[in-house]
Amino acid sequence: MLRLTLGMDDVLANTHEKLISVILNDFPTNLTEKDLTAGALKDLLHPKQLAKLKKIINSPGFFTDIEVKKDAIETVKALSGFYEIYIATACMEFPNSFKDKFDWLLKHFSFVPWTNIVFCGYKTIIQSDYLIDDHTSNLQVFKGEGILFTAAHNVRETGFRRVSSWKDVSELFLPIR
Amino acid sequence: MLRLTLGMDDVLANTHEKLISVILNDFPTNLTEKDLTAGALKDLLHPKQLAKLKKIINSPGFFTDIEVKKDAIETVKALSGFYEIYIATACMEFPNSFKDKFDWLLKHFSFVPWTNIVFCGYKTIIQSDYLIDDHTSNLQVFKGEGILFTAAHNVRETGFRRVSSWKDVSELFLPIR
Repeated sequence: MLRLTLGMDDVLANTHEKLISVILNDFPTNLTEKDLTAGALKDLLHPKQLAKLKKIINSPGFFTDIEVKKDAIETVKALSGFYEIYIATACMEFPNSFKDKFDWLLKHFSFVPWTNIVFCGYKTIIQSDYLIDDHTSNLQVFKGEGILFTAAHNVRETGFRRVSSWKDVSELFLPIR
Repeated sequence: MLRLTLGMDDVLANTHEKLISVILNDFPTNLTEKDLTAGALKDLLHPKQLAKLKKIINSPGFFTDIEVKKDAIETVKALSGFYEIYIATACMEFPNSFKDKFDWLLKHFSFVPWTNIVFCGYKTIIQSDYLIDDHTSNLQVFKGEGILFTAAHNVRETGFRRVSSWKDVSELFLPIR
């Protein structure tokens, strides 16, 4: 069975959407929702704002109420009949997120066993046939075939096969029924 | 640079020693320290005792005061001049240990950056040239070369190159000075 590893933030979870709502509600900013969905936050925010955002991301509870991406649960369930599914999230920069991220996965993706969950820093450590991720930096160091999941921060990236929804993932990885 | 991945429990940390002290102090048992260092706890303890021990391992604070193995810090420091060092610990079964394990690594091995720390379930997910680990189950599913670090639960195992101390690791992996 081939191994398919999935990123968590902005692949399974709508993390960018939560970040936007934090910025619009809690930050003094002239940026609109449209601005914030059109590019990478690291290019749009001031370094001090980025530092504040990182502190918020590392607050206990930040990940608890993040929405699951449309069709993700059903598709991952179907994929697990054909692939060995792993979920790998680069969260070592945010130690206070560990428990919340684990609980979020347990709540929404309980059919992926804990044996197949990975918390890491660099995704170069992932041994897998495929990796679906939203960061080209993760895909560039990955030894298998990387698939880019469309997100605000990667819309202008080329060089990787791209999926923009879980319907796309389904079409790419599942046999025709 | 070749990549060398290190296990944490019973490789960098004297976890078995802490477990023995918990059993001798808090469990009703006739087992002696000698018995407990001669074999695997899963073979020595009653299933109910094992379940109690797993609960204790998953209590916040359990990992905080575990001792570092002799010569581990100096050797890993020296190795990091010659290898890309990763630390991978199979701790997904114990979600309450995540933060304590991270803090323990930060305290004793702060020279290994957070980018190179991995929390996982099965170590088959580790992409590395070498893995030093105390469990043959981890080494059997690993794609690179596995090195067995001697521990009470693996003394009778064969089939892997074995190291019994950090001096052994040093001799095997470091150039002669």
